[in-house]
Amino acid sequence: MTIDVFILTALRSAEGASVSGGEIAKKLGVTRAAVWARIRELRSLGYEIEASPHEGYRLLHTPDLLLADDLLARLGTGRIIGRDIRVFQETTSTNDIIERLAVDGVREGVVVLAESQSKGRGRLGREWMSPAGKGIWLSVLLRPKLLPHETTQLTIAASTSVARAIQSETGLAPEVKWPNDILLGNRKVSGILTELHAELDRVKYIILGLGIDVNQEETDFPVPMRSIATSLRIETKHSVNRSNLAVALLRELERDYSRICRGQFEAIANEWEALCSTLGRDVSVRVGERWVHGRAESLANDGALLLRTQHGHLEHITGGDVSLRK
Amino acid sequence: MTIDVFILTALRSAEGASVSGGEIAKKLGVTRAAVWARIRELRSLGYEIEASPHEGYRLLHTPDLLLADDLLARLGTGRIIGRDIRVFQETTSTNDIIERLAVDGVREGVVVLAESQSKGRGRLGREWMSPAGKGIWLSVLLRPKLLPHETTQLTIAASTSVARAIQSETGLAPEVKWPNDILLGNRKVSGILTELHAELDRVKYIILGLGIDVNQEETDFPVPMRSIATSLRIETKHSVNRSNLAVALLRELERDYSRICRGQFEAIANEWEALCSTLGRDVSVRVGERWVHGRAESLANDGALLLRTQHGHLEHITGGDVSLRK
Repeated sequence: MTIDVFILTALRSAEGASVSGGEIAKKLGVTRAAVWARIRELRSLGYEIEASPHEGYRLLHTPDLLLADDLLARLGTGRIIGRDIRVFQETTSTNDIIERLAVDGVREGVVVLAESQSKGRGRLGREWMSPAGKGIWLSVLLRPKLLPHETTQLTIAASTSVARAIQSETGLAPEVKWPNDILLGNRKVSGILTELHAELDRVKYIILGLGIDVNQEETDFPVPMRSIATSLRIETKHSVNRSNLAVALLRELERDYSRICRGQFEAIANEWEALCSTLGRDVSVRVGERWVHGRAESLANDGALLLRTQHGHLEHITGGDVSLRK
Repeated sequence: MTIDVFILTALRSAEGASVSGGEIAKKLGVTRAAVWARIRELRSLGYEIEASPHEGYRLLHTPDLLLADDLLARLGTGRIIGRDIRVFQETTSTNDIIERLAVDGVREGVVVLAESQSKGRGRLGREWMSPAGKGIWLSVLLRPKLLPHETTQLTIAASTSVARAIQSETGLAPEVKWPNDILLGNRKVSGILTELHAELDRVKYIILGLGIDVNQEETDFPVPMRSIATSLRIETKHSVNRSNLAVALLRELERDYSRICRGQFEAIANEWEALCSTLGRDVSVRVGERWVHGRAESLANDGALLLRTQHGHLEHITGGDVSLRK
C-alpha cells in the first residue's frame, strides 16, 4: 500500500469525521510534514481534503479519477476480481492488454481499466466509442473451470453485475438484452464483449470486457447514435462518479463470478430473467449468416437463449444479434 | 528466395540430373566461385551434392533438417498454409509462438516448426514429449469464417491430412481416433491440439498444433508409454525424412483447409469416417467431469461425435477423451 492509499483509507474509514495528521504520521512512521506534503499532492489530483490545525484532515470529495492504488484499497483483499488492477491513460483496447497478460501466464482476476481506448470494440469487431474520462472501459482475465460452450454464462453474469452496480450507484432501473447489452429506456448504456480462448473441451482463459457510458452528454454521441445510445449522466441528469461505480461493479462481478465457480449459475439466471427485456418477445436472431425467428422463451443452463420457432421447435442459441420483431 | 534456396530448387528440378555451375551463377548474377562456396556450405549442412568438373552439380540426398527457406521453396507460392514458415531450434511450444503472432495480428497461414519443444503439450494441458530432431512439432495460425462450435471440423480435417501425409510418405495405413489422435496398429503416432480464440458467435483465430513421432526408436519412449506410443521409424523399420514429410503434410493441410473454407466439410468427413477406428464401436467419452457411454455412430456436420446412448438418445459431443469399451 502506498502512503497515499494509506491516507485515503484512513480518511475514508473516518466516514466524514476528521483524522489527526499526527496519528497518520505515527502509524506510517513518517513526519507530520511528510503527511501534509502528500495531502497537498492528493488535493492537486482533485481530492478535496479539509485541513484544520486542531481537528486534522477530513475527506470532503473524491475526484472522478481511476487510480489503481485507490481502487485496490477500497476493494480490500481476499478477492479474485481486482486483486491486481492496472489503469492506462490510453490503450488500443483493454481486451488487448488482458490478452497479452493472459499469454504471459498472469493469473486470473487481473483488471485493466483505461481512461480512453483508441480501438475500443464491441461484438463482431464493431467499433466501441471510448472517449477519455467519459466511461468505464474495463476488462478482466478469468480462468474458470467451464466447458467452452458454457462461456455464455459469464456474459449473462456480467450483465446482471453491471445492472446491479448501475442500480445501486444511480437508482436507475436497467434492463438486460440477451446476450450482452444493458439498456436504459430502450437505449444501450453498456455492452459486454466476452472473448474465449479454449481447446475443444477446456477453457484456457476468458477475457471479459465491458464498457459503460457514464458521463457523456447527448452531444457527445454522433447524431445517428443518439436514438440507440445513452449514458448514466443523460438518464440521471447529473454526472456520476466513475471510481465509485467501478468499485461497485468489481464487487458485483466478484459476487457473480464466485457463484459461477460454485456451480450456482441458476441463481444468476433467475436474476437475469427478472431484468430481461427479451424474454417472452418475438425476436429475430442473426447467428453468423443465418437468421432464426421465434419467441425468446428462457435461458438454458449454459447461458444460451432458448427460442421457440413457429414450427414449435426449441432452438438453442449460444450467441447472435437479437432484434425485436414488430 | 536466398541463393541457397535458388540452388536447391535448381538441383531438385533437374530430378537427379546435373546442373551446370556456370548456368546457376549466370541466373543468380554471381560468380561460379560464389556458387561453389554455397555448395560447400550446403554440404556442411548435410546436403549430399556431387560436383563434377564437366557435368556440374547433382543433388544426391537431402538431409533430415527443417530449413524454412527450403520448405518454402518446395511448397511454392499461391497458398495459405505455409506462406510464411518459421523454424526454431527450441521453443516452449510451437502453439505458444503462434499465439504471440496471432495477438500481433499476423495473417493466417503462418507455420511454426521447432526441432524440439521444452513444454510441448497435448490436450487438457498434458505433456507432449518433443525430443530434438525426432519428430515434426508444428503449429499453424488460421482465421476461418467458422462459428466457434464448428472448430472441431479443423481437428477432423487435420487428422485426415496427417493420415494422408503419413500414408504417402511411408506406405503405412494410419487410423484416426476421434477427435485428435492418429494411430498405427493401435498405438498413437500423432496428436492434434486445436486452440480456439473466439467471441460467443465468431472465431477470431485458431491455433492448429500437431506432433508426429517420426524417428524415435522404441527406447526413446519411457517404458510405460511403449505400449501406447509409436513412431514412423518403429513401424517402417527405417528412418523417415522429416522435411519430405513436412512438405507433404503442409500440402495436405492446404487442401483440407481450402475445402473447409469452401464449405466442403462433408467430403472431409467421409474420408475421415473411412479412416476411423472409433465409429461403430462401443465407447466411453469423458467430457469435462462427465462420462458418456454409447455407440459411436457418425460425425455431425460440425465435426462433433454422435453417440447413441443405451437409452437410444443421440448425444452430440464436441470434445472429450474416448476409450473403447471391452
